[in-house]
Amino acid sequence: MIFVSPKEMEQCFNEILLKTGYSKDKAKQLAEAFTQNSLDGIYTHGVNRFPRFIEYSKNGYVKQDAEPLLRSKYNGIEQWDGNLGPGILNAIAAANQAMKLADEFGIGCVALSNTNHWMRGGAYGWQAAMAGYIFIGFTNTIANMPAYGAKDARLGNNPLVIAMPYNASAIVLDMAMSQYSFGSMELSAMKNENLKVYGGYDKEGNLTYDPAAIIESRRPLPVGYWKGAGLSLLLDLLAAVLSGGLPTHEISSRSVESGVSQIFISINSKKLSNHSSIPALIESIIDDYKNSVPENEQASISYPGERVLNNRKRNNENGIPVMKKIWDEILALNTAELPLLNKMNNKENE
Amino acid sequence: MIFVSPKEMEQCFNEILLKTGYSKDKAKQLAEAFTQNSLDGIYTHGVNRFPRFIEYSKNGYVKQDAEPLLRSKYNGIEQWDGNLGPGILNAIAAANQAMKLADEFGIGCVALSNTNHWMRGGAYGWQAAMAGYIFIGFTNTIANMPAYGAKDARLGNNPLVIAMPYNASAIVLDMAMSQYSFGSMELSAMKNENLKVYGGYDKEGNLTYDPAAIIESRRPLPVGYWKGAGLSLLLDLLAAVLSGGLPTHEISSRSVESGVSQIFISINSKKLSNHSSIPALIESIIDDYKNSVPENEQASISYPGERVLNNRKRNNENGIPVMKKIWDEILALNTAELPLLNKMNNKENE
Repeated sequence: MIFVSPKEMEQCFNEILLKTGYSKDKAKQLAEAFTQNSLDGIYTHGVNRFPRFIEYSKNGYVKQDAEPLLRSKYNGIEQWDGNLGPGILNAIAAANQAMKLADEFGIGCVALSNTNHWMRGGAYGWQAAMAGYIFIGFTNTIANMPAYGAKDARLGNNPLVIAMPYNASAIVLDMAMSQYSFGSMELSAMKNENLKVYGGYDKEGNLTYDPAAIIESRRPLPVGYWKGAGLSLLLDLLAAVLSGGLPTHEISSRSVESGVSQIFISINSKKLSNHSSIPALIESIIDDYKNSVPENEQASISYPGERVLNNRKRNNENGIPVMKKIWDEILALNTAELPLLNKMNNKENE
Repeated sequence: MIFVSPKEMEQCFNEILLKTGYSKDKAKQLAEAFTQNSLDGIYTHGVNRFPRFIEYSKNGYVKQDAEPLLRSKYNGIEQWDGNLGPGILNAIAAANQAMKLADEFGIGCVALSNTNHWMRGGAYGWQAAMAGYIFIGFTNTIANMPAYGAKDARLGNNPLVIAMPYNASAIVLDMAMSQYSFGSMELSAMKNENLKVYGGYDKEGNLTYDPAAIIESRRPLPVGYWKGAGLSLLLDLLAAVLSGGLPTHEISSRSVESGVSQIFISINSKKLSNHSSIPALIESIIDDYKNSVPENEQASISYPGERVLNNRKRNNENGIPVMKKIWDEILALNTAELPLLNKMNNKENE
């Protein structure tokens, strides 16, 4: 493990993105987002995922110059086509547009089709909440989780994000529909650690704490068994129906996860009659929640997003922890041969 | 167990409601709703709950003549005050109003404060979906579930409903944030049956399948542990903030659950450019889902709301199954003494 300063990480990402062919503006936004995700402790969708993003950008799964396009609009609801552009940039634009609709209509919904992995859903919750808005968003994904009682993966883990401003910061729930992600199970398996709660089934169909057994069976557990499976199905239905984009089962028929569907709903609470009392109301709810009697006396009960603040503070002070192997891989991307590869690739896509 | 025809049940409910002092219109709507919930197999929020609803109506927790009142509006979002009227009637009105907003703005949100238990959340999903709309709704509740890692109940089980039209019927997810309701755990305890999956903790803080131990500890499990707890917190925040109504911790300080906050979001998908292809899209998603390979070869994988259709069919044919003790209690309510009690009660409330 090495520690990289946020500034150094962002600069390195930026250089690689420019060499990969991204415009100055896009490279800057993407480098910032990947660094922020890492700073906040979401390494799986920050620094650890950066090499794959560059690979997808080079081989054309992610269209570097694509811009989202408004396809249809009816007052507070809009459908946008992501044109297979970088998922992060499409999602930032969609969240911003949902906030504009909320300014005009109180509540606004942007349904985005044909986009790519947004990396960390919580980022768009933070974006909206720090701008003073309430946010509900979700994405569908490739099939990676069986329905309850089923053996084969037909559902995505379809992360759901709900966020609102709180105390000059934000409360941000970022919740995938599987109890554990494959990323975190792989980490536990590497460390030879059992999961804290059942994470899925082994090949014999028994519930297990063993991450390796679940990785082998490809049967992670939906949160709350039949309940999370049902919620995952409904989020996929909403995402595909409202955006006119691909549902999970069609995304899964592609060679890589690409062309996903996403929903961004925003509410401008300044338009509500009780807006001046909202901060105190939120504080009273969080205060009561944090007054919970913990099972373990040393532990404190944290609200969604609270740990992110701790990670951010610690990583700002100590640097962002990165596995040496991954950082070496990223440094290797920052070499002279990239522009050539990229040019070749652009040619292929022409 | 006895079997009561839907017609007989509705007529009996209607008579009792009239004797309790409800207007003809309100009695009719309420009798229909309680009967439909029972017909659909949601007995806990149908016939089994009817006596308590009458009790709350008589003692003034539920204001019989109250009508919801528009308090504030900004284009697609409205705040209504339920004036502590019957939760079912307030929720039907709020769902209808959300659909009207969806007609005008594409997406509409009605935030309802100061209302009472809506009984079965799924009913409003069916209402909207059968009218051709997409629906997202939720309610907060009295505190009945500890946060993850906590011993005392500070969270509600805050049911979430998502619905859409499907195949001349509907897909309706109706999902409380606890793995099991106390009602279903009490039923299992009575039958001396263990729960299928962990339902909560015993008094020593160990996860258990024993419903009686969970009823004793008052520590039901949030769906997906920390995830469902987080989602429950956010739903309470959204419900209270958007409606300007009470959050769970304030509802819990009252003597009975009353004055809850609810959200009704509706989308008119006929306003979307892809509207003509939506039915086929939904069908393709459900078809793929139902093609799942079941763990148990005899079982089939059902989508949310599918079992309701089976219950409805069976109960229409055979009558609605009711525990004799409960039906006797209801028949006893249908006596001459009620109007008097009610008049006394109305006097007290004047």
